[in-house]
Amino acid sequence: MMDKWYAVFEQQQQARGIDLRIVKENLKSLKVETPSWGYGDSGTRFKVFQQEGIPRNSYEKLEDAAQVHKYTGISPSVAIHIPWDKVDNFSSLKQHAEDLGIAIGAVNPNLFQDDDYKFGSITNSDAAVRRKATDHLLECVEIAKMVDSRDISLWFADGTNYPGQADIRKRKHWMYECLAEMYQSLDDNMRMLIEYKFFEPAFYHTDLADWGMSFNMAQKLGAKAEVLVDTGHHPQGTNIEHIVAYLLDEKRLGGFHFNSRKYADDDLIAAAHNPYELFLTFYQIVTALVDDDPEVRHNANNIAYMLDQCHNLEPKIPAMIRSITNVQTLYAKALLINLDKVKKAQQDQDVLAAEHEVRKAFEVDVTPLLQAVREEMGIPADPMEAYLESDYGNKILSRGKGGASW
Amino acid sequence: MMDKWYAVFEQQQQARGIDLRIVKENLKSLKVETPSWGYGDSGTRFKVFQQEGIPRNSYEKLEDAAQVHKYTGISPSVAIHIPWDKVDNFSSLKQHAEDLGIAIGAVNPNLFQDDDYKFGSITNSDAAVRRKATDHLLECVEIAKMVDSRDISLWFADGTNYPGQADIRKRKHWMYECLAEMYQSLDDNMRMLIEYKFFEPAFYHTDLADWGMSFNMAQKLGAKAEVLVDTGHHPQGTNIEHIVAYLLDEKRLGGFHFNSRKYADDDLIAAAHNPYELFLTFYQIVTALVDDDPEVRHNANNIAYMLDQCHNLEPKIPAMIRSITNVQTLYAKALLINLDKVKKAQQDQDVLAAEHEVRKAFEVDVTPLLQAVREEMGIPADPMEAYLESDYGNKILSRGKGGASW
Amino acid sequence: MMDKWYAVFEQQQQARGIDLRIVKENLKSLKVETPSWGYGDSGTRFKVFQQEGIPRNSYEKLEDAAQVHKYTGISPSVAIHIPWDKVDNFSSLKQHAEDLGIAIGAVNPNLFQDDDYKFGSITNSDAAVRRKATDHLLECVEIAKMVDSRDISLWFADGTNYPGQADIRKRKHWMYECLAEMYQSLDDNMRMLIEYKFFEPAFYHTDLADWGMSFNMAQKLGAKAEVLVDTGHHPQGTNIEHIVAYLLDEKRLGGFHFNSRKYADDDLIAAAHNPYELFLTFYQIVTALVDDDPEVRHNANNIAYMLDQCHNLEPKIPAMIRSITNVQTLYAKALLINLDKVKKAQQDQDVLAAEHEVRKAFEVDVTPLLQAVREEMGIPADPMEAYLESDYGNKILSRGKGGASW
Amino acid sequence: MMDKWYAVFEQQQQARGIDLRIVKENLKSLKVETPSWGYGDSGTRFKVFQQEGIPRNSYEKLEDAAQVHKYTGISPSVAIHIPWDKVDNFSSLKQHAEDLGIAIGAVNPNLFQDDDYKFGSITNSDAAVRRKATDHLLECVEIAKMVDSRDISLWFADGTNYPGQADIRKRKHWMYECLAEMYQSLDDNMRMLIEYKFFEPAFYHTDLADWGMSFNMAQKLGAKAEVLVDTGHHPQGTNIEHIVAYLLDEKRLGGFHFNSRKYADDDLIAAAHNPYELFLTFYQIVTALVDDDPEVRHNANNIAYMLDQCHNLEPKIPAMIRSITNVQTLYAKALLINLDKVKKAQQDQDVLAAEHEVRKAFEVDVTPLLQAVREEMGIPADPMEAYLESDYGNKILSRGKGGASW
Repeated sequence: MMDKWYAVFEQQQQARGIDLRIVKENLKSLKVETPSWGYGDSGTRFKVFQQEGIPRNSYEKLEDAAQVHKYTGISPSVAIHIPWDKVDNFSSLKQHAEDLGIAIGAVNPNLFQDDDYKFGSITNSDAAVRRKATDHLLECVEIAKMVDSRDISLWFADGTNYPGQADIRKRKHWMYECLAEMYQSLDDNMRMLIEYKFFEPAFYHTDLADWGMSFNMAQKLGAKAEVLVDTGHHPQGTNIEHIVAYLLDEKRLGGFHFNSRKYADDDLIAAAHNPYELFLTFYQIVTALVDDDPEVRHNANNIAYMLDQCHNLEPKIPAMIRSITNVQTLYAKALLINLDKVKKAQQDQDVLAAEHEVRKAFEVDVTPLLQAVREEMGIPADPMEAYLESDYGNKILSRGKGGASW
Repeated sequence: MMDKWYAVFEQQQQARGIDLRIVKENLKSLKVETPSWGYGDSGTRFKVFQQEGIPRNSYEKLEDAAQVHKYTGISPSVAIHIPWDKVDNFSSLKQHAEDLGIAIGAVNPNLFQDDDYKFGSITNSDAAVRRKATDHLLECVEIAKMVDSRDISLWFADGTNYPGQADIRKRKHWMYECLAEMYQSLDDNMRMLIEYKFFEPAFYHTDLADWGMSFNMAQKLGAKAEVLVDTGHHPQGTNIEHIVAYLLDEKRLGGFHFNSRKYADDDLIAAAHNPYELFLTFYQIVTALVDDDPEVRHNANNIAYMLDQCHNLEPKIPAMIRSITNVQTLYAKALLINLDKVKKAQQDQDVLAAEHEVRKAFEVDVTPLLQAVREEMGIPADPMEAYLESDYGNKILSRGKGGASW
Repeated sequence: MMDKWYAVFEQQQQARGIDLRIVKENLKSLKVETPSWGYGDSGTRFKVFQQEGIPRNSYEKLEDAAQVHKYTGISPSVAIHIPWDKVDNFSSLKQHAEDLGIAIGAVNPNLFQDDDYKFGSITNSDAAVRRKATDHLLECVEIAKMVDSRDISLWFADGTNYPGQADIRKRKHWMYECLAEMYQSLDDNMRMLIEYKFFEPAFYHTDLADWGMSFNMAQKLGAKAEVLVDTGHHPQGTNIEHIVAYLLDEKRLGGFHFNSRKYADDDLIAAAHNPYELFLTFYQIVTALVDDDPEVRHNANNIAYMLDQCHNLEPKIPAMIRSITNVQTLYAKALLINLDKVKKAQQDQDVLAAEHEVRKAFEVDVTPLLQAVREEMGIPADPMEAYLESDYGNKILSRGKGGASW
Repeated sequence: MMDKWYAVFEQQQQARGIDLRIVKENLKSLKVETPSWGYGDSGTRFKVFQQEGIPRNSYEKLEDAAQVHKYTGISPSVAIHIPWDKVDNFSSLKQHAEDLGIAIGAVNPNLFQDDDYKFGSITNSDAAVRRKATDHLLECVEIAKMVDSRDISLWFADGTNYPGQADIRKRKHWMYECLAEMYQSLDDNMRMLIEYKFFEPAFYHTDLADWGMSFNMAQKLGAKAEVLVDTGHHPQGTNIEHIVAYLLDEKRLGGFHFNSRKYADDDLIAAAHNPYELFLTFYQIVTALVDDDPEVRHNANNIAYMLDQCHNLEPKIPAMIRSITNVQTLYAKALLINLDKVKKAQQDQDVLAAEHEVRKAFEVDVTPLLQAVREEMGIPADPMEAYLESDYGNKILSRGKGGASW
């Protein structure tokens, strides 16, 4: 019956002019990194509900992440967070990852949980705090070199809660100075991915509040600095795919932190609340993959796709698998857009036809396609089902409660 | 010089037709309750920055609250939170408050920090959890009776994070059943103040998401149930003063949780980000105080004014004093609106004149008025300055770090 | 090939436990009313771009609407707007509709375009204006009786632009008085559908600003008054499906004005920007259709589904067809939710399973189902294609530019 | 009595360490431009309520604007809009302005009301439309030269309503090409002020959607291109003063379009809904006026302050006067901030003290200061009162209804 379904699917897509060979290649090359902290306990400011079986250390986090890759086949790396994942021996951690068939991905400095950072880290008016913060950034670059990571993901909680609390413009200069020093320490193949956030934990102003501030900073720093888009870090209503298209056009789209939100930075399972939005984001990326400008294509081919979520209520590993398959599903749908037909309708200024061509691809059920791709990759057809049928979930219960949290 | 200022002020207000005697009476009868948890450590989901000198128990929280009343003169009661403020002997706690010249105010149940409440408290699909939650509510009513509190403030974190997670309509019925049971246990003079919240910690749906849901619940329960407005619990752009006017007209405005926000439920110092909004809220209340309908006047005279804030960066006691004086300042300004002139302009449909009459009162500097009122009340002219000059702030440092938190 | 597709679809849904017979019945009974004004020219405050072929009068609007019904089969009625659709002889208009195979649906009074309503209609401080407005409402009830309409849709632009401009509470009373008078004039089978709106054209306060105000008004008026939900009339982030579920539970959901928005009240093609939201709304309705409470079922079976959109850039008739099929598509998907499985997962508090059951239905491509239904109804398999292949679009070009607008 | 008030005020400010001489100088040099279209009829998409006495042509608009300047003393120029203000003889128009004691200010092209611009002007996929749009921009530069205007204000309605409707990145390139051509035509002293807008009239994507897009465009174009901030063009919650500080630091803040909003782009009287926000914006500017960096000071001294509002309900000239005095009032308050004390508190990381210093200035009633300044400028102490007492308002009634509108 799956065969019949795929046969129908294939016939339909061919009839629509879609080259499934290319679609499958693209799907096989998609990689979505999971964050080590996503396997630990998390919560809201009101309560962290501890789960049983949470990894007790970074080694166990990698083990859980390896499960996600085992069942999805497209999640071969894990972002780490320093100091949460600070270990005595990073070679050993790296080796552990490799033994598990995965790798360590982006390195994330933490500049928001030390008491010294109460009034800012690299924007603190106290030069000693800025020094400390910068040293931490440099340390993270060194760690990245040790574990062969290309990317340093930079999110700064820095900001203020009240009008007048701090000198906004001075903080801007301090931030630049610190990041410029960090930039110097990067190897040629390394990248700084500069995130921004509309608000939280700062409630009046956030030093890097929007893509424009991250983008301008990246431009000042140099070609190794790019912008990181967290899908939950925008004002309500923001057209995120427009920002993505814009950054691709400027060749500065470094990567994504995927997650879903309905309100603020809710950090829920990717695409769980407005799947069309993520599809439309991939639509912009898919057009860039075939752009005339080789630099735009280069950017589109080097986007770091990462999850950054908190699964406060749901079990961690399945939630991660769901997120990965959601991302994959929406990418698959975007790959089914007939871009030539869209282009034709756009040239004709036929609004309804252009919109229809895009939406039509979203409405396709890509289950048979994904199952075919997974089969070709030697991955279970239904990653979630396969994981739930394994006994890994039970096995880790022996870890008990009170594992790692952030 | 203060005298000269007051003389000018008095002359001006008389010229505007304002009866300062009435204004002062109103100001003297204003009472703003502070929350016991506002004296403890708090933070965001990212970090709680611990402060030195935080009260280590409920008795010390009352002591700090007594300081706020000592310097402001209008904060004679303290809301408590169960179980945070659960003590062996509530008579003793009550006595401690009275010894400090204050009283225990509203009782706040906590139905969001027990592991059992992960999927809801009084809306949980598990009847045993609902029973437990209802029992906690009944316990809080008993505590209220023990400490002579009139009001039970009810905020429910209950909600869901994902579409389909729960049966929204069943939860609505369960909530009613539990609250109806609680309602039966109230003495005749007691009130349930039912809060609502747009989102957080629930990120898909919140069982009591807006004033309409709280209001409808209150109506179903009976006359002892009223609506509690937390100024930070609305969607962006919401006209809060409209809701306040509406509830006053329905005689169901139970009280306020004051705080300030720019983004979500930021819980900052009251009126620190948009003081005009709080002024306009008081403008609606001030019109109700002189309404033709005695029931509306009765409601306006029985509003429970309470703070509900987290001072994550700033010292607790001064932040509370600032909040109290901010509320007092904006109430004072609202009392200076010449309602007759507003009414006249409204009748004439003279938009600019009507708006001007309201705004003009906001623009008045009420410092001399507040100083005069404080002098008449035997309170320092500048509460903040007086507190900072006292050595209380130093004295409590001996408590060290690691005091109470939520 | 369509047959093969349907065969696969049928087999899959049967395997999922879905009774396609019931699904089809439900789909056949869906009716979505289009608005007469949606066939006229419209625009933003900046510009109305006139289109060629716009109907020049109400008779021609009905003719266009009949085309939408001809190709979709589920749009057999047309809402009219008074005075835009005021004709000398309503019997003749009614007959014209019937001759076209359609009927006149809801009657919409207009209380926002007369100079007298500058400062409000039924909330105007001038009693003469309120009288005039109420008379217009009564006139609309009479028209509804003449054209055999059950529903009067009530949207009020009434509100203010500035703090202090008007007495919010008095306006609330005036509104009630006027609507109570109107209520008396209704026949027993008639309904008042009371709409609300967050803002626009009033920019400070809107007299009926949210569902709670409409709901409370409906309750005060009586059982013939219900709430009308316009999907574009909420603050950003609002969980509309929660409101829908709430109103169903209260048996007061009168109907919908469908349209899509990303920002404010954008009035775009239904479901064009976040199709999942409309699906989740139908999910709530679908659960109500099988509720234990017969009154809830009765409400769910008597919802007035209506479009209320402005097609500023796109041609009117195709935009309406697209909207109708979008609504139909999302309703079809919601009908494919296995409610028993959702219920089971909800009882188990299995968040991921419950969410999955709901989302899975959304991901189904319902094209074969809709084509089968249309075939059984004697309607073209692809309504849009069939319309575009007809020469109606060309024929109406003879009307020229400068047709009806609002 | 005014004298006594001023004496108290002066004494207080001196005690606070404020140099009133400098404050007054700054106040006297403030200039706020009014827009010619602000004197014409306007409305929402639902209705334009026509007023009596609206100017019938550009000459009469200038006459009304001259009244605003006559009574405020700080509004000596008028922005014009082409083609609304297109006249046969711009020398004559310029002469008329000069005869009235005012001047023509910024020139605003209109690229949103021609049928050709339905799908975009300088981002239209049709090269002929882009040519036409660019020619209009060049024409406006020529007009600016004719009337001795320094600034061309550029707002583009360009955008799309539906996903897929157009190629976002291509439109970005087309826009650059057109603006680069326009840039070449500027004289050395001229400036392009590039506005941005979150949404409306485009409801899916707006080509220049935020400050970052305008800023990046300005940087690409060259030093004569700067960013224009319209205070109503941001997502809810946006920290506008942060953007202002940022642009000042980048020396790219070209100017402001002032107006007030609670919801979307409501275009109401400046500062009527959240006066603190405008005060905080001026606070950022005031710090820039005394910055160590001469380029920042230069930018702060060359900001084009302009109103851009629609007075839909209220009479035009008084609404403009109110807006001007609101802006003046908030600027005056910002000038009373003791920046040294703020700086000291910021260095001490004393959040409450820093916030207090800023807010304290806001709470000062600047009426005596403004009256003193006006007296020194030979302007009526109360501009609104003086205007209302004049008979200009009556005189223009002879113009009747049906004047200019947009």
